[in-house]
Parts: sequence; C-alpha cells; structure tokens
Amino acid sequence: MSDGLVNRQIVLKSRPIGAATVDNFELVRTPVPSLASGDGENAAGQVLSRTLWLSLDPYMNVRIRGKTYAEPVPIGGVIVGRTVGRVIESRHPDYAPGDIVLTPGGVPGWQDYVVSTPERKVDPSLGPISTALGALGMPGKTAYVGLLDIGQPKAGETVVVSSAAGAVGSLAGQMARLRGARVVGIAGGPEKCRYVREELGFDACVDYRAADFAEALARACPKGIDVYFENVGGDVLQTVWPLLNDFARVPVCGLLAEYDDMSPRPGPSMRSVLNKRLTLQGFIVSDPAHLERTGDFLRDTSSWLRQGQVTLRQDVVEGLERAPEGLVGLLAGRYSGKLVVRVAE
Amino acid sequence: MSDGLVNRQIVLKSRPIGAATVDNFELVRTPVPSLASGDGENAAGQVLSRTLWLSLDPYMNVRIRGKTYAEPVPIGGVIVGRTVGRVIESRHPDYAPGDIVLTPGGVPGWQDYVVSTPERKVDPSLGPISTALGALGMPGKTAYVGLLDIGQPKAGETVVVSSAAGAVGSLAGQMARLRGARVVGIAGGPEKCRYVREELGFDACVDYRAADFAEALARACPKGIDVYFENVGGDVLQTVWPLLNDFARVPVCGLLAEYDDMSPRPGPSMRSVLNKRLTLQGFIVSDPAHLERTGDFLRDTSSWLRQGQVTLRQDVVEGLERAPEGLVGLLAGRYSGKLVVRVAE
Repeated sequence: MSDGLVNRQIVLKSRPIGAATVDNFELVRTPVPSLASGDGENAAGQVLSRTLWLSLDPYMNVRIRGKTYAEPVPIGGVIVGRTVGRVIESRHPDYAPGDIVLTPGGVPGWQDYVVSTPERKVDPSLGPISTALGALGMPGKTAYVGLLDIGQPKAGETVVVSSAAGAVGSLAGQMARLRGARVVGIAGGPEKCRYVREELGFDACVDYRAADFAEALARACPKGIDVYFENVGGDVLQTVWPLLNDFARVPVCGLLAEYDDMSPRPGPSMRSVLNKRLTLQGFIVSDPAHLERTGDFLRDTSSWLRQGQVTLRQDVVEGLERAPEGLVGLLAGRYSGKLVVRVAE
Repeated sequence: MSDGLVNRQIVLKSRPIGAATVDNFELVRTPVPSLASGDGENAAGQVLSRTLWLSLDPYMNVRIRGKTYAEPVPIGGVIVGRTVGRVIESRHPDYAPGDIVLTPGGVPGWQDYVVSTPERKVDPSLGPISTALGALGMPGKTAYVGLLDIGQPKAGETVVVSSAAGAVGSLAGQMARLRGARVVGIAGGPEKCRYVREELGFDACVDYRAADFAEALARACPKGIDVYFENVGGDVLQTVWPLLNDFARVPVCGLLAEYDDMSPRPGPSMRSVLNKRLTLQGFIVSDPAHLERTGDFLRDTSSWLRQGQVTLRQDVVEGLERAPEGLVGLLAGRYSGKLVVRVAE
C-alpha cells in the first residue's frame, strides 16, 4: 500500500553529554513499513499511520539520556514521541483507514509513518486535531492529575507553578485559578513572565533568572506556599523550599533543571518534610493509577477550553527535519505553551 | 488542698549542643499549684493531677532544642511530657478527684503535680494504666496512622521499619505483619535485632551498626522496599533509599539521627522521587487531620493487644529525678519498647 514511498526517521546518533544538541540526532531514510509484510501475529492489533503532527515534550530529554523510569531510546533508534496521524492501514478492529489517531508516547514517533496500537481516536469535532497533543492530551492530563489529585489546592491557598509558561505549567496554573487559589508562576525572562500574567491570568509571575528572584518570590507569596507544582527542581526548588507552609503538597512532575546532571544532586532536607508535614509525590501521568481519570479530565478540560476558562498557546515547528532543533529549543526554554511539529497536512 | 506539699519539677537548664546530657536538666522544688488560688477564668476547665507515670519520648529532644514544629521548652521551663495521673482537684465538669487521666504531650509533665486540661480519662479496666502512654497512647497511634494511613502496606509487600525496637517502630512492624506484609526491622546491635525478630516476630532485622549493613539490608529485602517507615533519617535513610521500589511510600515519623545536627543536612535526590514515583509524607500524630482516627485506633489496637497479636515491651525508670538519665539513654538507643518513669504509686 505504501510501496516505493520513503519514510524519513530521526534517530539517536549519540547520547547527550550535558545539554542535548542537534548533533545528537540524525535523519535517515527507510522504506515505509507495511503491516501486510509483517507476520500475522506481530501485526495483529497494529495500525500504520501517516504522521501529521508530532509532539515535542521535556520527557524526551530523559528518554534519550538512558537514565530513566522508562525504556531509554537506543543509539540508532527512532526517537519516541506522541503523534497525531491518519490511518493508512489497520489490523485493529477499532481503527479504519482515514481515521485520525493518537499514537502512544513510548512509540517511536519521530518519523513520517508510525506502526503502533493507537492510544485512541481523535475526534476532529472537538477542535484542531493537534490539541490532542496539548490541552486535551498528555500535558493537559499531567496538569489535571498533578494539580487536582496530588496538589489538591483549596480556595484561598497559594499555588506556585514552575515552568509556568510551558504546556503543563500553564495549564496547571489556570486550573488552580479555577479552584480559587492564588497562583504564582515561575518562568525564565520578562517576556515569559508577562505572558503568564497577562495572557494566562496568573496572579503573579516571578523571573527565576532575575537577581532578586528569592525576594521577589517571597513578596509574591505573602502567605507562604501551599502547593508547589514542581517542573524544574534544582535552584528553583531550593528557593521555593523555605516558603512552603505546614501541610504543603509538592507534586513532582518534572526536574528540567536536573536532567542534564551527570549524577543526581541531593534533595532538600528531610527535617522540613517532618517539621512542616510536607507531602512530596512523584508521578507520571501514564501510570495505570491515573487511567481512571481520563474521562473526568477530557470532560472538564474540553468544557474549560470551550468556555475560554483555560487556554494553551501552540508553537509550531515546520517539518520533521526540524524536530531536533525544536526539542533543543524547548529544553533551552525558548518556547511558551505547547510545541508541536507539523509533519504533513 | 495541697498546701505545704512540695512539687518537684525538672526544668531545662541549658539547650543541648550536640547530644543532650543530664547536665542540660535541673531538679527544682516549688509549692504545689492550687486551682483555687488561680483566678476563676484561668482555672476553668483545668485539672490538678498527681503524676503517677511520665512518658519519655524522642519528640522531647526536639522540644528542648528550640528548632521544632511546636513550641520549644524555654530555658528554666518544666520539660513537656505526657503523664498518667490521679485527679486531685478539678474545675472541669468531666473529671472528678480520684479519676485517672492522661495529660497532653505539650503540657509540662516532668513534675509531681500537673495542671492541665486532660486529653482523656484512662480506663483501668483496659489494662495497666501506663499503657495509655504506650500501645494505647501516642506511640501506638503514631504507628497506626503512619503505617496504615500513609504507608498503606498491601499483603506481600515489603515494609522496612527503622528504630524497630523502639515503641513506635515495634508497633508499626507488628501492624504491618497483620496486614500480610514482609516486615524487616532496622535496629542498633545484635541484642535489639534478636528482640525484634524473636519477640516481635519481624521476618528479619538488620543491625545498622554492622559493617555489612547495606548488603544485609539488601539481602533481607530481595523484592525491594514498598513502605519505609522512617524514624531516623541520616545514613540509614541513605542506605534504604536505593532499595525503594516504584510507588514506594515513606511516612516520615521521626529523624532521630538528625536531631542533633546543628544545621539541616541535605535529603535524598528528587530524581528518585520522580523516577520511582515515590510519596514522602511527614506527619505528627497530634495534628487535627488524624483526630478522627482515634476511635479506630483504640478499637483495633486494644483488640490486637488482647489477642496477643501485638505486644509492646515497657521499660521503667524509677523516680522522677531519674527522668533526665532515662531520656538521655533513650536518645542514645539504650532501650527497647516503651520507656516510662514511675513517679508515684
């Protein structure tokens, strides 16, 4: 069905030492896979899709480094990533050619054609199909589960969100506002802080690159911090730590500032965990424990989006070949909102 | 009513630098207080009790140091501590002279006569009245709430308890066994380890003072650790940390090994919190959040005690004047089980 067509793939050429660069990646050309050519058992339940959109997300930085809670990408392997694609060929009873599908985040998605058991169909009537990679996808559910289920903010409490201009952070902060909390973002640079305050409606946003970061954060949180939605770790965490109130909750969603460390750095003192009765909880949205929340998440978040109570900016990288550049820029903090690659129309 | 009698008190002479010693304490003699001599408003709701038993507990080490989640004991102030006493005089409608009462842990209890609003009556028909300071008191409820509500062990999981020969640890481990978990204690020295294994029925107990502690702990936990009931912190925590399984829970109940530090030491890496989706939760049993569990705790634990499914050794220090020596010994790890001072018959 796809004979003669070329499948462009982006593979891992070398593991990053320090920050990832475009030289860690390589574009290769292979024949387009065909389910028909696979043996029956392997192909059963699988779908071949033409990639339309590819999601770029911070977790990819962990997967290409090989020190991870999940399977690392092997050298020479296609980088993993969620895609929205159009079904070309199907051996799965739920999917037919022409359907729009979301492929899972653990499947090699940095390519023109993906073989997978899709996560689900994407309903184009809910909005642009690329939102399945953003507000109605993994970043949205990460914010929803981490903030609401683990953070459990109450009206009047103070919620601080790091990486506040990013996809997960910007959604988590807006959801906290909907719960009646005072929401303070942390972001890099005045432009991102302005965006977080003015476009996302956070009560305040503090620039972690500014010389007076610690003082500014304390001023923005006069009643201390009840929930800290942790996306970055490192120095930002050290600055947040003394401001945590008794019984504060810290959903640990990501550690952007620590992924490039070659060995783990020590964490904050256990004495505060005890004295302040803190709860720290690491989570990964794809864990089975969070599966049951998918229905609630889609119902609530699509309603918030329709009513304009939550928004998510989308930045688009044009062309699969520019995905490495996009990811490097994402990790360097050059984007706000959700970053996606337009692979094909 | 108590005119002419002497009230012996043990007061804080100086704050410990490093480990507490008996020289940090001083015995003073004062007149016995009388509720009648207090002004009406202050005395209302209060009870004067003759101290029979005084509880010695690790939290006292925190209160006398002045770096604490609760009010520190002032220099010259009577040391705080729970007592079981007999009511001498009452301005509280629920208590009458002759009643046996439990006085709260935040009230100065290192004295022959205590003025307090009692926490509750002690029912002598449930067992020796001193158990209100042990298995049916604060240590018992600490184990119950920390292990069951925060640790949430499941049958077949591995639970590790530090300070396993202590009051809280020995109860927490026995409760975990009742839940069907494999229970591994950590204690100091071969005699305590034998006690934990043979008398408390833990599946294994590892000596943290032994040269091969890390290897022995790993051998005792072939399937890793699902719940770590944290009483000590420090090096023991560092040794436990790499053995924690994905989704492990760490109720942080105490940090015995860290209280003497003059500044907080760094904690374990946040990277593991994220990668392993750990939950760390500090708790203090007297927090209002745990109040509602008192009924369940008393019902379950008294039944376990009656049926011999849970036991708690009681060590007795004879005489109020020896309380400082008892506390210093407790903090140095010289006791197993619950340590109490017999103040009067």
